[in-house]
Amino acid sequence: MSETGKDWDEKKVQAAKWFESLRDQICEEFQSIEGELSSGNKADMAAGKFDRTPWNREDSDEPNESGSILKGGGEISLMRGRVFEKVGVNISTVYGTFSEEFRERIPGAVESKGAFWAGGISLVAHMQSPLVPAIHMNTRMIVTSKGWFGGGTDLTPMIPNHQDTSDFHNALKNCCDQHAPHYYQEHKEWCDRYFYLPHRQEPRGVGGIFYDYLDSSEQGGDWTSDFAYTQDVGKTFLDIYPKLVRRHMNKNWTDEQRETQLIKRGRYVEYNLLYDRGTQFGLKTGGNTEAILMSLPPEVKWP
Amino acid sequence: MSETGKDWDEKKVQAAKWFESLRDQICEEFQSIEGELSSGNKADMAAGKFDRTPWNREDSDEPNESGSILKGGGEISLMRGRVFEKVGVNISTVYGTFSEEFRERIPGAVESKGAFWAGGISLVAHMQSPLVPAIHMNTRMIVTSKGWFGGGTDLTPMIPNHQDTSDFHNALKNCCDQHAPHYYQEHKEWCDRYFYLPHRQEPRGVGGIFYDYLDSSEQGGDWTSDFAYTQDVGKTFLDIYPKLVRRHMNKNWTDEQRETQLIKRGRYVEYNLLYDRGTQFGLKTGGNTEAILMSLPPEVKWP
Repeated sequence: MSETGKDWDEKKVQAAKWFESLRDQICEEFQSIEGELSSGNKADMAAGKFDRTPWNREDSDEPNESGSILKGGGEISLMRGRVFEKVGVNISTVYGTFSEEFRERIPGAVESKGAFWAGGISLVAHMQSPLVPAIHMNTRMIVTSKGWFGGGTDLTPMIPNHQDTSDFHNALKNCCDQHAPHYYQEHKEWCDRYFYLPHRQEPRGVGGIFYDYLDSSEQGGDWTSDFAYTQDVGKTFLDIYPKLVRRHMNKNWTDEQRETQLIKRGRYVEYNLLYDRGTQFGLKTGGNTEAILMSLPPEVKWP
Repeated sequence: MSETGKDWDEKKVQAAKWFESLRDQICEEFQSIEGELSSGNKADMAAGKFDRTPWNREDSDEPNESGSILKGGGEISLMRGRVFEKVGVNISTVYGTFSEEFRERIPGAVESKGAFWAGGISLVAHMQSPLVPAIHMNTRMIVTSKGWFGGGTDLTPMIPNHQDTSDFHNALKNCCDQHAPHYYQEHKEWCDRYFYLPHRQEPRGVGGIFYDYLDSSEQGGDWTSDFAYTQDVGKTFLDIYPKLVRRHMNKNWTDEQRETQLIKRGRYVEYNLLYDRGTQFGLKTGGNTEAILMSLPPEVKWP
């Protein structure tokens, strides 16, 4: 991407609007699912509703504790329900100046003298039923002196289910194949490498896709095609995940299956706090702690 | 410490024997406490007993995934009881060669060409009753081309209790004051700085003492006096913590207090995985994951 200035302003607006629209669609769909529950261990509970909490950084030009200047804000949507035990959907649009130390690690940030803009949506769902897989989805656009998209979605079943895994991967393959023939293989492998716990020698879940620094302008693409891919990742998530939820949500589960789920969630916590780049990025740039750590499961065991 | 070779071999043996003896005394005392429980929410449960699991690195001279060579072994003592919901006491004696990257960060390790020896004891107790504080204690001896002691103990009440906090700090002050007039102030402040969650702007608990790189040979001390201090930290822990446990263990607690405890434990997990140097050191040098992560609480909530 060689565009700067005004062109980028327009793109930032378009991307931020999309992340907001996707958030609205997801929240609506998840609330519908809450209403549809007809049987299973938690059917007697009231259906959950999303609570929204906007947050804004005060307009300070002073570096925070991490040495970066961070402005902007976002909105946390959180639902504690009878299908979705805890699901958080964050959107944010932040900008400012990375600390000198941090800008070394971000493409184009030395050249921009640390100036950056980042907009995105991030979602983690921990489910009541151990028969329903947990999910993570995040897409974002970042601008320094360069600009790119990143994101992906990956599935974490509590109890292995071949059909779910297969349907999830197929949906992502269909999505990727509409944009570039090499995307699926590359982004699937990136996901497998990324969501891995070296200290356990275990993958976090069954994978999905993960991509970053996506700027296809030197491969015959452009911002529009990269944005279209990123939008399709969101749409694909919104299509396939509810199918997996509805497939299992009305079934009863055992105490033993719940215990398995609570232990598996411990691995999720270990991953997020020890390795997740979004968490590290967020906490190290002085981001909103409540929004960043909303990904942690509601109940966990390390027996 | 200027001693090398044979002198150090003898010191390593003495230190390792002490850590083992302290482990035995602690396990015996904690099992006695389990037997003494006479009332409270969990009085109907059977008293817990420690299970011991020795572990040994195969004698490989190949660097592990982290690039370090790690040999030796240790023993995990784990009890899941009615007073101690989950308490782990690890002793270990490991040695080998730090990776080039890692040795930059450890005193004397560049000069030793990465060669190191480390022996120690590490304990974390998560209690059934939210009225009984959680505790951490760890002491260790490290040898590279230098040699030193480190360690400390700190208290994490779930529900603030002024008497417990005051008694704990006083016991540590008495211990420190027998060794050097500046130890208490210095090691207390070090503890407060160290066990702090910047992303929450919260201390982990109410503190205690923490020290590292203790080699008083240039301040008129020697290995013997540093070892004596380290032994006294262990003895002080073994004296004061059981008093706090017995003070509260027979009382009933409410569901609300339990909920407060489970949430407070979440902060403990955040600290250990995001910041704790022992955890990072252990996982990055290819240490025993089960032993390292035994510090994680049995049940946690991020509601």
